[in-house]
Amino acid sequence: MLRIVVIGSAAGGGFPQWNCSTDACNQARTGDALARTQSSLAVTADDEHWYLFNASPDLRHQINSTPALHPKNGLRHSPISGVIVTNADVDHIAGLLTLRESAPLVLYATERVHGTLRANSVFNVLNSELVARLPMTLGQSFELKTPEGKSGGMIIEPFVVPGKVALYLENPDAGPNFGSQSEDTIGLRIQSMEGGEYFFYIPGCASVPPELAARLQSAPLVLFDGTLWQDDEMQVAGVGIKTGQRMGHISMSGPEGAIAALEGLNVVRKVFVHINNTNPTLLADSPERHKVEALGWEIAFDGMEICL
Amino acid sequence: MLRIVVIGSAAGGGFPQWNCSTDACNQARTGDALARTQSSLAVTADDEHWYLFNASPDLRHQINSTPALHPKNGLRHSPISGVIVTNADVDHIAGLLTLRESAPLVLYATERVHGTLRANSVFNVLNSELVARLPMTLGQSFELKTPEGKSGGMIIEPFVVPGKVALYLENPDAGPNFGSQSEDTIGLRIQSMEGGEYFFYIPGCASVPPELAARLQSAPLVLFDGTLWQDDEMQVAGVGIKTGQRMGHISMSGPEGAIAALEGLNVVRKVFVHINNTNPTLLADSPERHKVEALGWEIAFDGMEICL
Repeated sequence: MLRIVVIGSAAGGGFPQWNCSTDACNQARTGDALARTQSSLAVTADDEHWYLFNASPDLRHQINSTPALHPKNGLRHSPISGVIVTNADVDHIAGLLTLRESAPLVLYATERVHGTLRANSVFNVLNSELVARLPMTLGQSFELKTPEGKSGGMIIEPFVVPGKVALYLENPDAGPNFGSQSEDTIGLRIQSMEGGEYFFYIPGCASVPPELAARLQSAPLVLFDGTLWQDDEMQVAGVGIKTGQRMGHISMSGPEGAIAALEGLNVVRKVFVHINNTNPTLLADSPERHKVEALGWEIAFDGMEICL
Repeated sequence: MLRIVVIGSAAGGGFPQWNCSTDACNQARTGDALARTQSSLAVTADDEHWYLFNASPDLRHQINSTPALHPKNGLRHSPISGVIVTNADVDHIAGLLTLRESAPLVLYATERVHGTLRANSVFNVLNSELVARLPMTLGQSFELKTPEGKSGGMIIEPFVVPGKVALYLENPDAGPNFGSQSEDTIGLRIQSMEGGEYFFYIPGCASVPPELAARLQSAPLVLFDGTLWQDDEMQVAGVGIKTGQRMGHISMSGPEGAIAALEGLNVVRKVFVHINNTNPTLLADSPERHKVEALGWEIAFDGMEICL
């Protein structure tokens, strides 16, 4: 058994974004559209030990909104046994700052991301005597551990996907990829050790090359990068100059988009996560939402629960 | 005119704290006690340009909950013109990560705090072309500026108060003060340029020496460090080993406490802010709340608005 809760379904900035007043963000403020917090999952294989996949700036509120993540045993306790971080984007690491206050945890990331965390002393609020920082190596599966060294009940396989280094780490002198390395953007295959159920979590991805398509073939569940509906969407909305490709994100639509790329792969359940506030599929009554759903995809929402 | 909104009234961790299940935190989860987010004020002198005093990890939600801080002019806009940071504690700087997304801002801090921000590359999400980082010098008053270089309508005087360096910056080899320097903990006197109204904001303070008492004499309003009710409160509650003095925080009660220290100073309005989740005055019906109110103090709550 795997129990997956999408505790944050929006991309960086959330929905609404603090400084954005598009019609959509204003609808999220008034409650006319469903507001969403920033990108994160909580997953358990035993209903006791939960693991966060990415830690967003909204984490404190996400925990408050998710009873399964409330403390249960003793005055200081959390069901959260560990965190797995897929990149060093602010929307995926800032929540680590919420996990201070002397709690035992296991923190998994690539050596590249660990290096960024070490280089930023603010993350030393995670007490090194209580928080083990363990490396993930691309292509090498590993078993999640609890802080006590027991099994967390899941096997994780990290793999490279096309992407980009975090914005604040970009090197403008390093050419068109800004110094991005293969460890900068990864996908995860997450499998229950007991039952063998598995799914893929790929919240950031710039394109779907054949090896990635082959990997996803016939998967029971894929949670995939749904940042943008179309590549120039932020320009069209008048709120930014960057394209999806510049940000390292594939679009949902179009001949090179995620919907087309995963078409025919026989994936049982396809869910978009990490959805930007400019993406019209966030609005329940938009033509784009109807289209994406008609094509067999779901749009994640905060609190969405999936059991495998 | 000064309009002050306490957008976050709790100390670091908030109320409830993510990994705490004291009776009080559980009451905050169920709604039986008023939940509170982490320490921050929003202040304006003209109802147009707002300044944040400290930026907490809860900032995105604090903005969502405060209509005055919603964007008003254009697709990308914020009434927030700047941020003033009183120390480098996580509960006072993590919210800077929320203020990304290419918004013009002015960020004021002591050189010591600016140094910490520069040393942590994650804060480079604040675009240096749009966010001016300006130094505050202890004892030197300055005028708040808007990002466009206009007047923000307020004069700020930063002054040293007894305190301690941020936990993650402590140097265990530096003796009993952990390497703390005078710039590590400051208070602010905030004054309207037009009307001359003023107040003091002192969210962290270890004691009240005579020069600080003299400074506060006859002030119209003091927002003061209300972290703990008594120095050994976390030990008594069974949730921590540190005393208030070890953390650099005075207690409310006792002969050396804040209530005693400000007694007789003729301060018109005294409000405790930065209140820890172990502090019994957070509970509206506690004997300590009744006592603190009977002694002429108020306990701040999220959304508390004060006009001078």
